[in-house]
Amino acid sequence: MSEQRVATAASDGRLLRGARSRRTIARHAVDVASVEGLTALSIGRLAADLGMSKSGVQALFGSKENLQLAAVEAARETFLAEVVRPAAAAARGLPRLRALVESWIAYAESPLYPGGCFRVATLPEFDSRPGPVRDALARDTHDWQALLAAELRRAVANGETADLDAELVAFQIDALLCAANTALRLGDERAVDKVRRALDGLLPVPTR
Amino acid sequence: MSEQRVATAASDGRLLRGARSRRTIARHAVDVASVEGLTALSIGRLAADLGMSKSGVQALFGSKENLQLAAVEAARETFLAEVVRPAAAAARGLPRLRALVESWIAYAESPLYPGGCFRVATLPEFDSRPGPVRDALARDTHDWQALLAAELRRAVANGETADLDAELVAFQIDALLCAANTALRLGDERAVDKVRRALDGLLPVPTR
Repeated sequence: MSEQRVATAASDGRLLRGARSRRTIARHAVDVASVEGLTALSIGRLAADLGMSKSGVQALFGSKENLQLAAVEAARETFLAEVVRPAAAAARGLPRLRALVESWIAYAESPLYPGGCFRVATLPEFDSRPGPVRDALARDTHDWQALLAAELRRAVANGETADLDAELVAFQIDALLCAANTALRLGDERAVDKVRRALDGLLPVPTR
Repeated sequence: MSEQRVATAASDGRLLRGARSRRTIARHAVDVASVEGLTALSIGRLAADLGMSKSGVQALFGSKENLQLAAVEAARETFLAEVVRPAAAAARGLPRLRALVESWIAYAESPLYPGGCFRVATLPEFDSRPGPVRDALARDTHDWQALLAAELRRAVANGETADLDAELVAFQIDALLCAANTALRLGDERAVDKVRRALDGLLPVPTR
């Protein structure tokens, strides 16, 4: 290889290693934040947990806020991969809505993070603190409810349920799931059954 | 006064001042925890905020966990005084259920604490950490849902609603209120309207 190609390859290697380290750190940040909150994240703490140098973690993230934002983004990607995408196999409308709820229940029952649902664990911590972290968590909430509302509208259009206020029912389903996540953390095994029964009550049977 | 009575009066005064300081500190702890979480409470932080000596606060509470428990207890007393007791003026059954929900909405709209509902702000922080703080917050959740369920059962008995699963509907109402609290913190003004409309949907009209 020419000197230039060797230098380029070395630089590519550094970038790749940097991206991999960034992912490793962000994933660990999600675990820590799911139990202790995003406020508990610090560059020194994560470096110590992972046996990395503090200056190395500092170079990758720059600030505590960037670390918090990287954790929110990593949790969002995992949520899309584990909850949203598997449900895409179901037909649009009521089947996909039920698939989304069921994959969410599986996610809350055998959580990917020690503290359960990441958004439920962190949003109440940041909902009164304006800034980019709150905005990112609010966007997650908005996008999730919009996804549920879209399937509810499709269910009405398909004649799978009677007419309903899709935005209101999406808000109620999200409220139920968040409450069930907390109840599961507190050891209430009946929370999942409550979600399923409440969901049935929120979906009016079509009259025709 | 005899020397003994002087000593007793001085001791009573110290106890009274101690109880008053304890209340002042616990109330400030509720304010701090409603925004920053119970983890942010420390004896040094509260002493500094209130211009008290750290050793004085230490003598009154002993440990960070006792300070957290005092905050949970102070928030519970305020909730009883501001949300539960005012609703007792309404007749038992549906009127009192609606009064409880309306006084809860007023509490979430113009919160007593800078971070909104104390339980919503702190339960997700502690739901994965077994111990007396989690137990105290879980008791608050249980008691509040039991109160709602009792009025729902009374509403059915009074013929004010058709038959319903009181425990399930109480879980749903609490889920809605918690979600509305978070939505209000994020600036969603329509959250209150959603709660009222969703509540109507949860209360089946009596058939007779």
